[in-house]
Amino acid sequence: MYRLVQKFGGTSLADLDAIRHAALRVKEAFLDKQQAQADVKGLVVVSAMGDSTDRLVAQTQAYTSNCQQRDYDVVLASGEQVSSGLMALALCQQNIRACAMQGWQVPIYTDGNHSTARITDIPQKNIVAAWRSYDIIVVPGFQGISPDQHITTLGRGGSDTTAVALAAAVQADICDIYTDVDGIYTADPRVVPSARCLDQITYEEMLELASLGARVLHTRCVELAMARSIPVRLRPTTNNNEGTLLQQEGASMEQPAITGIALEDDEAKITLLGVQDRPGVAAQIFTPISEQHISVDMIVQNVSADKKTTDVTFTVAKKDLASCMKVIKDCPITYSALRTDANVAKVSVVGRGMRSHAGIASKLFATLAAHGINIQVISTSEIKISLLIDQSNGKAAVRHIHKAFIEQ
Amino acid sequence: MYRLVQKFGGTSLADLDAIRHAALRVKEAFLDKQQAQADVKGLVVVSAMGDSTDRLVAQTQAYTSNCQQRDYDVVLASGEQVSSGLMALALCQQNIRACAMQGWQVPIYTDGNHSTARITDIPQKNIVAAWRSYDIIVVPGFQGISPDQHITTLGRGGSDTTAVALAAAVQADICDIYTDVDGIYTADPRVVPSARCLDQITYEEMLELASLGARVLHTRCVELAMARSIPVRLRPTTNNNEGTLLQQEGASMEQPAITGIALEDDEAKITLLGVQDRPGVAAQIFTPISEQHISVDMIVQNVSADKKTTDVTFTVAKKDLASCMKVIKDCPITYSALRTDANVAKVSVVGRGMRSHAGIASKLFATLAAHGINIQVISTSEIKISLLIDQSNGKAAVRHIHKAFIEQ
Repeated sequence: MYRLVQKFGGTSLADLDAIRHAALRVKEAFLDKQQAQADVKGLVVVSAMGDSTDRLVAQTQAYTSNCQQRDYDVVLASGEQVSSGLMALALCQQNIRACAMQGWQVPIYTDGNHSTARITDIPQKNIVAAWRSYDIIVVPGFQGISPDQHITTLGRGGSDTTAVALAAAVQADICDIYTDVDGIYTADPRVVPSARCLDQITYEEMLELASLGARVLHTRCVELAMARSIPVRLRPTTNNNEGTLLQQEGASMEQPAITGIALEDDEAKITLLGVQDRPGVAAQIFTPISEQHISVDMIVQNVSADKKTTDVTFTVAKKDLASCMKVIKDCPITYSALRTDANVAKVSVVGRGMRSHAGIASKLFATLAAHGINIQVISTSEIKISLLIDQSNGKAAVRHIHKAFIEQ
Repeated sequence: MYRLVQKFGGTSLADLDAIRHAALRVKEAFLDKQQAQADVKGLVVVSAMGDSTDRLVAQTQAYTSNCQQRDYDVVLASGEQVSSGLMALALCQQNIRACAMQGWQVPIYTDGNHSTARITDIPQKNIVAAWRSYDIIVVPGFQGISPDQHITTLGRGGSDTTAVALAAAVQADICDIYTDVDGIYTADPRVVPSARCLDQITYEEMLELASLGARVLHTRCVELAMARSIPVRLRPTTNNNEGTLLQQEGASMEQPAITGIALEDDEAKITLLGVQDRPGVAAQIFTPISEQHISVDMIVQNVSADKKTTDVTFTVAKKDLASCMKVIKDCPITYSALRTDANVAKVSVVGRGMRSHAGIASKLFATLAAHGINIQVISTSEIKISLLIDQSNGKAAVRHIHKAFIEQ
């Protein structure tokens, strides 16, 4: 039996015409597989229509004090319930034997953390039973059921996770995530016109790109796909391109030095100069920051010349800069100077090929130097190099790197 | 333990302010009872907000062919799900320990007739268990769960039925139905300014009035209340008036001759003259009409002068007149003439007092005669007399009858 999971996001379900179009995509893929193989069964995961989740959130926010997240989830989950019913109706109209099953019917078990629940288990029993009467089961994304039998929601971006978790539960042959882009590009095509859509990418590379501005798939969903080895394909809703396949690294996959380049310019840089160089200083800085729910991205600390003091540089989201500065000023640490810079861009180059291709970093630095672009901060991981540069150089840097590494 | 059921309709939940106001009404009633009795528990039943059901119906109607009612119900039930969550949040904000439970959680068992399901059973176990942690459980009206565990909806007006069925399940002390009117009036106050709100009314009287244009409570809900002897009170949302209590006839209740007068002017009269007077003719006329789902209201057949032919008069909704005429013309019966009149009004006087007060009918006919109003058709039941008169006389007739019987 071929088992196909397909997921459609809110922009692909913006209105009734869009749902009808998405239903046609489901039908095409289903019939296509049926030609090759007699026994095909499908699961379709849907987000809420267009901006309906925003509208529901706004309604719940009218009642702020003493609120239980439980009832907030009851309201929010209704958005996906509506689109699941409408998608099932649209599929029936296309003569596909389809029906909707809600999170509590599947059931999609989650923990009890309302509004940020995590999926704990999806038994395949009820889905397999429903497949006896229907070819396609439509399941609302983003929702599940808690141990005490209440509706939970998974947080924004949860629908992708629902799709991958369902694909794992039924051992799907493929999990197609339909989006409004053609797939994963080597760089943002608006910045680099010659950027090309990748046929394939490894989970690890996607994780680095997902957390770096290529916000096509939620990190959480990629982690789950990687842990359960689910082949996930990002496909466009609007054309028949094959999209980008996420899978494990295999011997057959070619290994270019760099797979993709990401640019992020919504971060601000904070530098503490002349911080006392002793154990516990980093914790004294970053603990109060995290307590304010401010997320810190890059952290770089250099050995200082005098070996008594050191310089610490880190980045936060621009929107968090003011509140982060307040935390630092209330912090009982001593430093000689505090500098901030909101005019920075972070350029990250990602590629599993770095592990085997020597000299990527030096070629990268040389490429930027040749174009007079100064590097402020460098941070590296096994398959990623991130650079902080002046914001005005961001796009040019991406183009030069793309030309040097990918268009070679 | 005092058990209070309260139900709010869509107009009482039109927007977030209206929900907040309804939550205040719940709180007031709850605290009021708590002063008299320590142990008070409540159930609040809610309809969908304002016109949200119309919006959801419109969405489902985009997909007409091959549609399963099952998925239609999934979409429709979301409206009450949203309002139940918002009501629970609004109650929590008022420091009431409240939570929402959906139809499948209660569970409200129904038959499998999607979109027109009937409630078959509501076990009280889960509600009683939830009352250990919460004082008020908010339940969406209009929805339940089928024997094969799918969401069902009860059809329009189903939320009142949900409230009464829940009141029966938990043996509630009172079922308060909040509406946008003050209660049941002796006549439509827009027609008869001196009409007064009734303190009480029997189920039987309400049934006659409910099917006659005083469309405050659905017949189905009144029938259930009567069968299970549930005290139901119609109360205004906007003021603290006591409203009208529906209950069984008791010795203590005064028995005026007439309780209420209803006027309906959306019916049309059809008369078949000279129909052959033999067994089976009535069936030949009305079977094809009912097969077209046309609802027939009054049916009057007179003994004819020649004992060979008879005249049959009946009424249908004005909107059904054209299609009904088509059915009759296709009908294999012979008649001498066919007459229709869309300019009729039906005046019905209802009162259990009729059973003991002789001469109501003659006084009624005399009242209309004194004002020169001609009666076209008369139909009676045990506690009701319905008259068909010219539409132009409708409002005047109601005023004269009200003056003669109720303002006496």
